[in-house]
Amino acid sequence: MAAAQAEAEAGTPRQRYRAQVQQEIKKHAWEQIAAEGASALSLNAIAKRMGMSGPALYRYFASRDDLITELIRDAYQSLSDAVRGAASSGADIRGLAAALRSWALEDPQRYLLVYGTPVPGYHAPEDTTRHASEVMAALLDASGAEGLGAMPPSPLQEHLADHRAWAGEHPADSAALHRALVFWTRLHGVLSLELSGHFGGMGFDPAQLYEAEVEAVVGR
Amino acid sequence: MAAAQAEAEAGTPRQRYRAQVQQEIKKHAWEQIAAEGASALSLNAIAKRMGMSGPALYRYFASRDDLITELIRDAYQSLSDAVRGAASSGADIRGLAAALRSWALEDPQRYLLVYGTPVPGYHAPEDTTRHASEVMAALLDASGAEGLGAMPPSPLQEHLADHRAWAGEHPADSAALHRALVFWTRLHGVLSLELSGHFGGMGFDPAQLYEAEVEAVVGR
Repeated sequence: MAAAQAEAEAGTPRQRYRAQVQQEIKKHAWEQIAAEGASALSLNAIAKRMGMSGPALYRYFASRDDLITELIRDAYQSLSDAVRGAASSGADIRGLAAALRSWALEDPQRYLLVYGTPVPGYHAPEDTTRHASEVMAALLDASGAEGLGAMPPSPLQEHLADHRAWAGEHPADSAALHRALVFWTRLHGVLSLELSGHFGGMGFDPAQLYEAEVEAVVGR
Repeated sequence: MAAAQAEAEAGTPRQRYRAQVQQEIKKHAWEQIAAEGASALSLNAIAKRMGMSGPALYRYFASRDDLITELIRDAYQSLSDAVRGAASSGADIRGLAAALRSWALEDPQRYLLVYGTPVPGYHAPEDTTRHASEVMAALLDASGAEGLGAMPPSPLQEHLADHRAWAGEHPADSAALHRALVFWTRLHGVLSLELSGHFGGMGFDPAQLYEAEVEAVVGR
């Protein structure tokens, strides 16, 4: 959001106006996602609410998919800011987990757009994965730090040693690869069920389950 | 599906016809969910595809929410059949995990309708939770079985000892409550990211990650 704000304040009046309208379109898009779901997103409905014609709005986003891509890019950007910001302030793996949870609870729609049920027919372009890679790199750094507990030996680690393309050039060993993956899947498991309301009425505190899962990933 | 089939074959010709039309409506609903997402489900669109008037279709399902409820009920019923069927054939906690994975991969849309992003505006009636409770009971049985590894001590277990309403009358101890919860959240974490395509292009085999997470839950 800070980056978008800066963008909105830079450039010629015409560029500033364009950036403002784009921000407004995205605000309406998030409202529509909350009310009707991402798969029901409609550029024409947004145009109508903004008092614009459909063709006028299409000058800002050429298609529904372009708009979704922009929302996903913003979401990954803010997740990357949150996680890398925490890491650069010295957060360890527990600190990254806390940053992830805060980011998720701050805006459940945003979390679920990225990590929830895919929007049928939508295909993300390759470059939305760049921020995801930045987040993964911060996670791999934290997963390979000294002082963490041993990961239990698992055939998975041998498999990951041979299937590590997703870690790019990161020098993480196979235990760190394993830890980073279960950090992601375990914490997503708790967060996604919590944000989707599955723990509602169960009576326990999801924050305590999250905390226990973080400690299991830390392994001490 | 077997239960629905039996229903379709029982009763008067009129009842059988009604059950057949309901089955056909649900088939179209699943196609629409796959193509456009559950939040875009439209009774009028289904009526059109079936060559019926909207009001004629509303005699079978009074609202979009009624139809979604029926699909969720069917989904929970088939999950309960799969998990309890495995348990009654002597499956241990590993066997239940395998049954869950097969059920999820067999029909990703069905899995994601139950455990994925909630449909905005939809509220499940209380009685859809009955099958969920049956699944949880089978899971608690398996989580408290002899011969499993110790769960690592965690403040979560003290919390669960005092917040166990969700386990009903089940005599599970707090370690079994802990194990059942992480069985659910960890395996959901892997399955939901796999079914949503998040591991695509990462190059490792999600089945091996699933297997490692099952072993971590077993704790040996």
